[in-house]
Amino acid sequence: MKKRILTGDRPTGKLHLGHYVGTLKNRVRLQEEFDCFFIIADLHMLTTKYQDLKQVKPNIRDLVLDYLSVGIDPRKCVIYLQSLVPQVTELFTIFSMLVSVPRLQRVPTLKEVMGDLKIETASLGLLSYPVLQAADILMVRANLVPVGKDQASHVELTREVAMRFNSLYKEVFPLPEALIGEIPTLPGIDGKAKMSKSLDNAIYLSDAPKEVREKVMRMYTDPTRLRSTDPGHVEGNPVFIYHEAFNKNEEEVKDLKERYRKGKVGDVEVKERLIEALENFLNPIRTRRGKFEETPDLVEKIILDGSERARQEAQKTLDLAKEAMGLQSLADFRKK
Amino acid sequence: MKKRILTGDRPTGKLHLGHYVGTLKNRVRLQEEFDCFFIIADLHMLTTKYQDLKQVKPNIRDLVLDYLSVGIDPRKCVIYLQSLVPQVTELFTIFSMLVSVPRLQRVPTLKEVMGDLKIETASLGLLSYPVLQAADILMVRANLVPVGKDQASHVELTREVAMRFNSLYKEVFPLPEALIGEIPTLPGIDGKAKMSKSLDNAIYLSDAPKEVREKVMRMYTDPTRLRSTDPGHVEGNPVFIYHEAFNKNEEEVKDLKERYRKGKVGDVEVKERLIEALENFLNPIRTRRGKFEETPDLVEKIILDGSERARQEAQKTLDLAKEAMGLQSLADFRKK
Repeated sequence: MKKRILTGDRPTGKLHLGHYVGTLKNRVRLQEEFDCFFIIADLHMLTTKYQDLKQVKPNIRDLVLDYLSVGIDPRKCVIYLQSLVPQVTELFTIFSMLVSVPRLQRVPTLKEVMGDLKIETASLGLLSYPVLQAADILMVRANLVPVGKDQASHVELTREVAMRFNSLYKEVFPLPEALIGEIPTLPGIDGKAKMSKSLDNAIYLSDAPKEVREKVMRMYTDPTRLRSTDPGHVEGNPVFIYHEAFNKNEEEVKDLKERYRKGKVGDVEVKERLIEALENFLNPIRTRRGKFEETPDLVEKIILDGSERARQEAQKTLDLAKEAMGLQSLADFRKK
Repeated sequence: MKKRILTGDRPTGKLHLGHYVGTLKNRVRLQEEFDCFFIIADLHMLTTKYQDLKQVKPNIRDLVLDYLSVGIDPRKCVIYLQSLVPQVTELFTIFSMLVSVPRLQRVPTLKEVMGDLKIETASLGLLSYPVLQAADILMVRANLVPVGKDQASHVELTREVAMRFNSLYKEVFPLPEALIGEIPTLPGIDGKAKMSKSLDNAIYLSDAPKEVREKVMRMYTDPTRLRSTDPGHVEGNPVFIYHEAFNKNEEEVKDLKERYRKGKVGDVEVKERLIEALENFLNPIRTRRGKFEETPDLVEKIILDGSERARQEAQKTLDLAKEAMGLQSLADFRKK
């Protein structure tokens, strides 16, 4: 039997090249090998963004189109919307009895998020976030959770909750493991360490050729190189990091690097080659996206079908959990 | 249009005379005047009791039978099981974004409960409890919540949550008001201030005549009165408090009091008259209980029907809330 994986995104906007390099590429591979559940975590989004939610619905649609366009295939995996699987909030409520407040206050990501977003006072939802995540993971009985090192503490908490439940009541939940991979990051076009929507330094999977060209042309390169005849640095140079990630023509990349180091190529040529490489990468993505975008109700159907499938899994798990605890459930009445 | 009321009980055991005097009697009256929702709050129970839940199912059944036997009538009100209305956990999760952790840490009942039950570290569930309660109240759009003074702070928090939601998104929730009544209490048979299961000093609505007699006979009376010829105190004397609450024969109560004050009546006679009064009170309750107990599936049907009705109300409210926020809901897809 295939192991099950849970991972996903908050519907906060279109996905960019950084997402592709960091996780999407990996997911396309994972769906071949594993039973994958990809969650669109709108409730998690609320923990840090609950005002002005006009964009959520278009964001959900964009997210699914981004998934499809890079090759995530709903015939091979389950794509679902968190809030359409209300069982997760039931399980979350049950789990909230099994985790102490100080334990949650010690979760390292809480302080990080509050620092990053300048949140002075945590909401109950923000404090609870790792427990809600535990419910997502355990609800579909996932075995593996691909996370970066910073999120490993959440999988640890999930294991604690599962162990506590299993020992208090009955063995219901498999203990998930963190699939801690090297999560590659891509710098922003401004050279900052991470491509990110909020830093406005991203090239999106759905950007048109004109936007791609414009963004690449204003990309940071080697700040110490003043003239194109100066020898330049290739390491840590965003343009070359992008070449390595997206240019399939290894010979060309090697040649550009050599000439760059010697001051034998200008930024413009390096960038023109990069635009070409990105277009080669993005064109099939755009074609697929266009096709999916035109199919009426396709995205809606994928979300509905995936969420229905997730609900079935969730209800099974919830029934098991309630039975183990001795709570009355609708399943009891159905049995009669 | 009738105003709506929400109130209820945790399924922690059979109800006793103290419950009758404190709330049940009032509920029988309220159901004539108001649109009453009576919640069996099994999720709330978990906030302080999550281990050894074997008794929960029998407790739920007992609770419904107790309700019916005192005259709560499911044709006039809705009796529902909290965990069979999962929408409440969805709304709870949404509300958790709108309440800060320090605000919840300041709720006075939190410290009280922790002190009473010797809980050293609050669970997330215990901290969250007033928010879950807010979701119960707002989910059915209740206007009035009968509470004792100690619980008034929860209704206050519920109003805060409702106001915050309404001002952030859209006017969805009516602001409920606390119906702070004199909540009469009945002392235990040991003379302690409150009849309570945990103090083992209760006479249950479902006690058989033999148990009632045995309990009344060992009731505390006036500890300063050594012989039945001594003048006794009537005020604060449990036996007379019970007479006042349950003896319909006012003349008899008056006469007993007078003679007690003068040392002209023994405890045994006062207690015999009390047993008679309690039997007059309990007999019709027992008869009704027996009738309901014998009807197959009656309790199950009442819970299922009531919970279905509560689910409909809850789903309506949840759809309104999600629409106001701009979240995607199943209702969106249904519209298409």
